Amino acid sequence: MSSIDKVLARIDANLDTSLDRLFDLLKIKSISTDPEFKAPCRYAAEWLAKELTEIGIEASVRDTAGHPMVVGHKKSGKPGPHVLFYGHYDVQPVDPLELWKNDPFEPSIETKDDGTKIIVARGSSDDKGQLMTFVEAARAFIAETGDLPVDVTILFEGEEESGSPSLQPFLQSHKDELSCDLALVCDTGMWDAETPAIAVMLRGMVGDEIIVRAASRDLHSGMYGGSAQNPNHIVADVIAGLHDANGKVTLPGFYDGVIEMPENVKALWETLGFSVEEFLGDVGLKYPRGENDRTPLEHLWTRPTVEVNGMWGGYQGAGSKTVIPAEAHAKFTFRLVGDQDPDKVQESFRAYVRSKIPEDCSVEFIAKDGSPALRLDFDMPALEKGKRALHDEWGKDTALIGMGGSIPIVGDFKRMLGMDTLMIGFGLEDDQIHSPNEKYNLTSFHKGIRSWARVLDELSKD
Amino acid sequence: MSSIDKVLARIDANLDTSLDRLFDLLKIKSISTDPEFKAPCRYAAEWLAKELTEIGIEASVRDTAGHPMVVGHKKSGKPGPHVLFYGHYDVQPVDPLELWKNDPFEPSIETKDDGTKIIVARGSSDDKGQLMTFVEAARAFIAETGDLPVDVTILFEGEEESGSPSLQPFLQSHKDELSCDLALVCDTGMWDAETPAIAVMLRGMVGDEIIVRAASRDLHSGMYGGSAQNPNHIVADVIAGLHDANGKVTLPGFYDGVIEMPENVKALWETLGFSVEEFLGDVGLKYPRGENDRTPLEHLWTRPTVEVNGMWGGYQGAGSKTVIPAEAHAKFTFRLVGDQDPDKVQESFRAYVRSKIPEDCSVEFIAKDGSPALRLDFDMPALEKGKRALHDEWGKDTALIGMGGSIPIVGDFKRMLGMDTLMIGFGLEDDQIHSPNEKYNLTSFHKGIRSWARVLDELSKD
Repeated sequence: MSSIDKVLARIDANLDTSLDRLFDLLKIKSISTDPEFKAPCRYAAEWLAKELTEIGIEASVRDTAGHPMVVGHKKSGKPGPHVLFYGHYDVQPVDPLELWKNDPFEPSIETKDDGTKIIVARGSSDDKGQLMTFVEAARAFIAETGDLPVDVTILFEGEEESGSPSLQPFLQSHKDELSCDLALVCDTGMWDAETPAIAVMLRGMVGDEIIVRAASRDLHSGMYGGSAQNPNHIVADVIAGLHDANGKVTLPGFYDGVIEMPENVKALWETLGFSVEEFLGDVGLKYPRGENDRTPLEHLWTRPTVEVNGMWGGYQGAGSKTVIPAEAHAKFTFRLVGDQDPDKVQESFRAYVRSKIPEDCSVEFIAKDGSPALRLDFDMPALEKGKRALHDEWGKDTALIGMGGSIPIVGDFKRMLGMDTLMIGFGLEDDQIHSPNEKYNLTSFHKGIRSWARVLDELSKD
Repeated sequence: MSSIDKVLARIDANLDTSLDRLFDLLKIKSISTDPEFKAPCRYAAEWLAKELTEIGIEASVRDTAGHPMVVGHKKSGKPGPHVLFYGHYDVQPVDPLELWKNDPFEPSIETKDDGTKIIVARGSSDDKGQLMTFVEAARAFIAETGDLPVDVTILFEGEEESGSPSLQPFLQSHKDELSCDLALVCDTGMWDAETPAIAVMLRGMVGDEIIVRAASRDLHSGMYGGSAQNPNHIVADVIAGLHDANGKVTLPGFYDGVIEMPENVKALWETLGFSVEEFLGDVGLKYPRGENDRTPLEHLWTRPTVEVNGMWGGYQGAGSKTVIPAEAHAKFTFRLVGDQDPDKVQESFRAYVRSKIPEDCSVEFIAKDGSPALRLDFDMPALEKGKRALHDEWGKDTALIGMGGSIPIVGDFKRMLGMDTLMIGFGLEDDQIHSPNEKYNLTSFHKGIRSWARVLDELSKD
């Protein structure tokens, strides 16, 4: 048996203990966006540093102004690229909690009606399950061969779900330690349950929250209704005016920098057999919304969007309350593509919002830092090796895809550390990340570990 | 001294103990719209029945499907009209609690910078302070003269702030017991701190809550943004489309039944010296919103409106969450005037909302019963007596005004029990009813008690 075959055999033999370790990590309530969960976030970092150290990777927890980083190294000047593996140990909030069938932090293996085994817990897919595929591959490699086939640096962050405020300062101050030849990021998905994929296009993102204020206090709607400004109506007007009747975003200059995909790329995507009926049918919908002259894959990968992730104002309790609230709120995120400039999009949005605010009312903005979209070089040598490794594991050609979500770290690696990134992940569309009952297929976890062993092995070859 | 003068002197002498009793009532957390406060609501009813019994009015708590009623009688076939006095012991919710300077259920007397003494607590004005003006007037009359000058029946309800679901059934089943010659309702205001008023026009109301549902679960906005329907956007579109650029409500047929006031009535209102700058300036606003060809008093008294009292969907916590929620909500109230039909307004609204819902989404409506607007007969004999009594107390002519808020009971009294209603109250515009730091002027309370004594006395005269 070649050494890679022995590593794969060891992975298969030890799957149960790999799962035990993943479950331990999933039980930690590392919700980064909510200050209440600060201690569990630190504990998740400590847990990971301890795991890495145990398998022979020199690792430590590094403090930041926010949640800590974990950095590990296993290097000895081996030939082949020195790779940096990135993942995040923080997870999304779990509300609405009442929609979870089980406690989101009590992981379980369940069997779906079609026989598929799934790991159910918050973070099972995004991103604890995914990052543990790499950790377990490294564990098997070191246990079997005494080392990793290429030099490896590991970086785990704990603020990915809350805008990564500490990441850029940390990359800047640890530039020498973290600059490698290539980054590996496991926060993306497969094309489908059988077809592996590498993401070569990522949408960027910029966000904003608005607080619209009118009267100095809540008012009685019977007394002031019709005369006094109602912030609920103003926020609704702001939201309603963002799209025209054809689903296009109305902000001036919004489409500047959007790049039209070449026809041959569009043609390639046609062969992927993407079914919008299935994509939407899985979540109980039928008809695509949005720009009505675009295909759904274009929407997802190559078109910019704006969504209201939250809005609220006035009385939300049981019964009724005849009130005009003093303020109303909305949270917006823009997904960016091509060369769209996050700052310019934000500026245009803010000018638009201000134009909607009556003279005796005010608006406050709470910024969320933006990142532009990214496209990888199709001729990158590591891309070919990654494709081959995934093909060997899954027995199907690797799809080169775009991603609807944002992974700002990939842009930071490129701009700050000069590294290209291979985005390989094993998530699936029905993983319900960010939603109740998040899951990760057991196959994604098992074959994900095997895939990373193969990728590391391939990268070590000439 | 005539007996009315003795009664008034007794009221003055006992003001402190009157205040003690009001404070006891204000301490009871009788928030009717929130099921959590069921027990305090009952306790408030029991407290009132006990008070009435103590002063010589035969009273008892009457169960309903919701919060109980209190009914009391003091009658012996005296000449003059048999009057029914109505008030409500329930109060509005207190959120946002953090904006209250003191505990809303720990009443206190405070002195404003201009020397005005105010009673601060939830319900101090709406409606516990107001209803106690009548109770204390009755107490003084009975203590001084051994009886009331006219036959009196009292009805206190505990669901006025939550749509009065039990009221109509109760009136129906107690028709004989409650039908009197005239109703007295103390849930309205003065024209200003010096000028007494009787409300002769009341806007009606109808409400609706919508729940718009799209996907079967919350979605990741990076994955589904632009393709899947976002209920926040749908609800915002619904709200934004309710008004045109001139502030008119767009619903088909909405203005059917709206009555144009005669020019001489409008002219009379001009003499009231209403200042929109002060009205809005008091709450930190400058410019009137709404139909831009109407005066603010027209808006308040004679024009129909729609207001969103609450809206919410998606993530409201700290930080950001890139989610497309599965559902979004909004609560609407319409104020009605003239002969507008609440059912027709609701039907038109629902048809409009349905027209805005994409085919693969759904909307659920939660109805709030409506009541049409009301106008009193200017030649009603009791109106002249009420005007005279208030003039005697306040030393100024009584203004005959409209009311922006809704008091559906007045319509129920007319339609179900055949009674006209004299709406007399001592609330002021700056009482902040339904808002944090609700107050009732000490003068309103003191002279309010004296006013009711005078009204009862006047009504007993030929």
